[in-house]
Amino acid sequence: MPKKLEHIGIAVKDLEQAEALFSRLLQTKPYKREVVESEGVTTSFFLLGDVKFELLAATNPESPIAKFIEKRGEGIHHLAFESENIEQELSERKAQDIQLIHETPKDGADNKRIAFLHPKSTGGVLWELCEEKKTDKK
Amino acid sequence: MPKKLEHIGIAVKDLEQAEALFSRLLQTKPYKREVVESEGVTTSFFLLGDVKFELLAATNPESPIAKFIEKRGEGIHHLAFESENIEQELSERKAQDIQLIHETPKDGADNKRIAFLHPKSTGGVLWELCEEKKTDKK
Repeated sequence: MPKKLEHIGIAVKDLEQAEALFSRLLQTKPYKREVVESEGVTTSFFLLGDVKFELLAATNPESPIAKFIEKRGEGIHHLAFESENIEQELSERKAQDIQLIHETPKDGADNKRIAFLHPKSTGGVLWELCEEKKTDKK
Repeated sequence: MPKKLEHIGIAVKDLEQAEALFSRLLQTKPYKREVVESEGVTTSFFLLGDVKFELLAATNPESPIAKFIEKRGEGIHHLAFESENIEQELSERKAQDIQLIHETPKDGADNKRIAFLHPKSTGGVLWELCEEKKTDKK
C-alpha cells in the first residue's frame, strides 16, 4: 500500500516555457527530461523536499496529455504514490472495489513500473501507483 | 520562497464519505476536522509521509468549493507550499509578475496564514502559500 507521495504530474502545453515557469515557482531547476514514447509525452522533473514535480507535455495530438489539456486546460494531471509491491497493491485495490485503469503494471518514466486507478473510484483524483524497477526483480 | 509541499487540497462533496474513501486509499485515518467559516469549508486532514491531504467540503452553496465542484467535479483543488516568510514571498512573487489572489495573508485552517497565487500565472495550478502562525509574531 502507499508509502509516500512520490510525484505530482502537471500537464503543460509548451515544455520549455513550463520549465522556465516552474523553475521560478519552485526556485529550483529541472534535473532531467525523459520521453515516454508509449504515452506520447515528454516529461521534465523537479525535486522540492522529497516530492517530485513531473511536467508532462504531449508529443502528438493523440497523446492523453493533449486530450486532457483540450478538455480541462493546463494543470495538475495526477498524483503518484510509491508502492512497495505494485502487483500486490493492484490486487488489494481491486479487492477494495476500486476500478483499475491498468490491471498489470507497465513501464513509465523515471525507471518506474506504474499503473493507474480510475478517478471515478478515487474522488476525482487520477491516482498512479509506482514502484522503482529493481534489477534483481522481473 | 517555497521550502516544501505542505499539503494537497482535494474538493469533495460529502465529507464523511470522502473520509472513508481516503482512509482506504491512503491507509491512514484523518487526524482532525476543522471548519473555516470565512471560506465556507469544513476540512479534514490526513498525513502520509510528511505531506498532508486536506479534504475540503462546502458548508454552503456559495462556498468556492461548491462552485469548483459544480464546474470541474470533485478532485484536486490546490497545492500548498510552506513559506518561510509569507509577506516577503508575496512581494517576491509580485516582482516575478505572478498574479496574486491575495495581496496580504489571511487566516486559514491548521493554524496557518495563507495566500493564493492565481492559476493563470502558475500553469493552471491553484497555488497556496502558507506559513505556520507563530505566537511571537504578529
